[in-house]
Amino acid sequence: MTHSTNEPRGELELVRRLREHLRLPPRAAGPEALAVAFGDDMAAVSARHAGLLWTVDMLMDGVDFVSREHGWEAVGRKAMAVNLSDCAAMGVQPVAALCAVAIDERLAMRDAEALIVAAHEMGLRYGCPIVGGDTNSWKSPTVISISIAAEVPAGQRPVGRSGAQVGDRIWVSGPLGGSILGRHLRFEPRVELGLTLAREIAPHAMIDISDGLALDLWRMLDASGVGACLDAGALEAAIHEDARRLAQRDGHPALEHALHDGEDFELIVAARADIEANRLLGLGLIPIGEIVAAGGLQLCGTDGRTSPIPIRGWEHFR
Amino acid sequence: MTHSTNEPRGELELVRRLREHLRLPPRAAGPEALAVAFGDDMAAVSARHAGLLWTVDMLMDGVDFVSREHGWEAVGRKAMAVNLSDCAAMGVQPVAALCAVAIDERLAMRDAEALIVAAHEMGLRYGCPIVGGDTNSWKSPTVISISIAAEVPAGQRPVGRSGAQVGDRIWVSGPLGGSILGRHLRFEPRVELGLTLAREIAPHAMIDISDGLALDLWRMLDASGVGACLDAGALEAAIHEDARRLAQRDGHPALEHALHDGEDFELIVAARADIEANRLLGLGLIPIGEIVAAGGLQLCGTDGRTSPIPIRGWEHFR
Repeated sequence: MTHSTNEPRGELELVRRLREHLRLPPRAAGPEALAVAFGDDMAAVSARHAGLLWTVDMLMDGVDFVSREHGWEAVGRKAMAVNLSDCAAMGVQPVAALCAVAIDERLAMRDAEALIVAAHEMGLRYGCPIVGGDTNSWKSPTVISISIAAEVPAGQRPVGRSGAQVGDRIWVSGPLGGSILGRHLRFEPRVELGLTLAREIAPHAMIDISDGLALDLWRMLDASGVGACLDAGALEAAIHEDARRLAQRDGHPALEHALHDGEDFELIVAARADIEANRLLGLGLIPIGEIVAAGGLQLCGTDGRTSPIPIRGWEHFR
Repeated sequence: MTHSTNEPRGELELVRRLREHLRLPPRAAGPEALAVAFGDDMAAVSARHAGLLWTVDMLMDGVDFVSREHGWEAVGRKAMAVNLSDCAAMGVQPVAALCAVAIDERLAMRDAEALIVAAHEMGLRYGCPIVGGDTNSWKSPTVISISIAAEVPAGQRPVGRSGAQVGDRIWVSGPLGGSILGRHLRFEPRVELGLTLAREIAPHAMIDISDGLALDLWRMLDASGVGACLDAGALEAAIHEDARRLAQRDGHPALEHALHDGEDFELIVAARADIEANRLLGLGLIPIGEIVAAGGLQLCGTDGRTSPIPIRGWEHFR
């Protein structure tokens, strides 16, 4: 099969295929009737529990963390934090977690314990204890999979990724790029900010940056059926100091790191243009562009020229 | 540290330690206030959604399945079925699942697809579609982790493992042992039976056999603070034909396979002795003994002699 230039393969393609296959039969009164689309940051549990969403993230040693360097507390913390970040992106309150592990059998039991307890303590800080799980050991690298359930605040709706509208301003919740220098382990998930935005601003769409600004924004655009124009000048303010440090080391432009590095775990927010900018600036948001009708993801220079931003970032099954 | 003869180490010890560590702070009005204890087959999600339970099971290539022999459809089916079996053991109705995978990158995308679609189709048969997940690839053997949410039928309570009472009869939902000959891949989770039992019999305790009759029954006894006497004569009727075939091959007694082989995924049921036996026999249950005040797990011979049954079975971190 062929791919157009702008169409990512690999994981996105697998998810697309699964979306086809996992369609519910017409008579199953299930999550399809609910407010969350398949493939969003979280899924609805059931019609009877419509105010409850859940999500899962799996982290593997050597891919998402390097246990020898990072230590098990940091790994446990991150395994919980990436899930909390999904809750932030939906504007919902995490309430409980399950933790499944396949632990390299060469580990001591205290390491396994440290891993899970660190995840639990990170969760507790956000109101989300581990309430159950599955512990296993094997002869391969350690895998940890955390599922989180979260409640939609009363009277609100979860903020999906598919509601971005032409004319919306695009914001990010902090500077981006170079998280590999350490922030990918230490980041604070934007749970409070996500809840505040959902309550006070009611954004049209949100998503968290796990695989890079370009790829995750593309996911929002794709789900919403729109395009985006990122302002080259404004993006300067969204480049993290770590991206600049990394750029000095590897010679790639810092902007490239901001666009394509994964694991920032900041929020991308699409909100009506008539919302007073000072309210969003006051919450620490940085404006980076606007939603347009079509054309995919474009970089718009101060000279009026536009150029397509390649859609790449961390993706499995490449 | 020392272990008494009858005290399993490894995974049980890790779970015991975690139970200590994961205690919720006193002011967290969380799952502890609910009807399900930590370490049961499923956990409560939150006080606001008290009628909803969830659980997770992780399966690893080379441990829980051998992908080269079994094929990805069988693996996906099993990954869903082991979770459905947990729902059966609580007497609750599965409603939705999340599926996280770390797939050996040497696999073709169609294998990953077959794995997840097979899990979804198995779930659908029991009213439990996959509604979301996380897809990853890596250079190690494949791991699949499925989380299931289930609803407690209106007006009922989930059946825990900790409610067995002295004098209860102990039943199993089918013959045991030798599942490694193939049943561990093809078993039908006892979801309907679990729901029927919860509705019509209200058992004091249930658990499903994932790690062997002796070890899983011991878990029920330990959680309930009681002992059990298994009737040597009655147990004969609970030995599966596969256990006898395996016994002929390996020279171990068939009874030993029935007691200690894992992955039967039948239910162990403790129910009041005054429930008419014909009702339970009519549901396919096999009586195997009774709950006693103490003494751990004993085998009681027709000659009146008793002997302790060793508590072993499949356990991680041994």
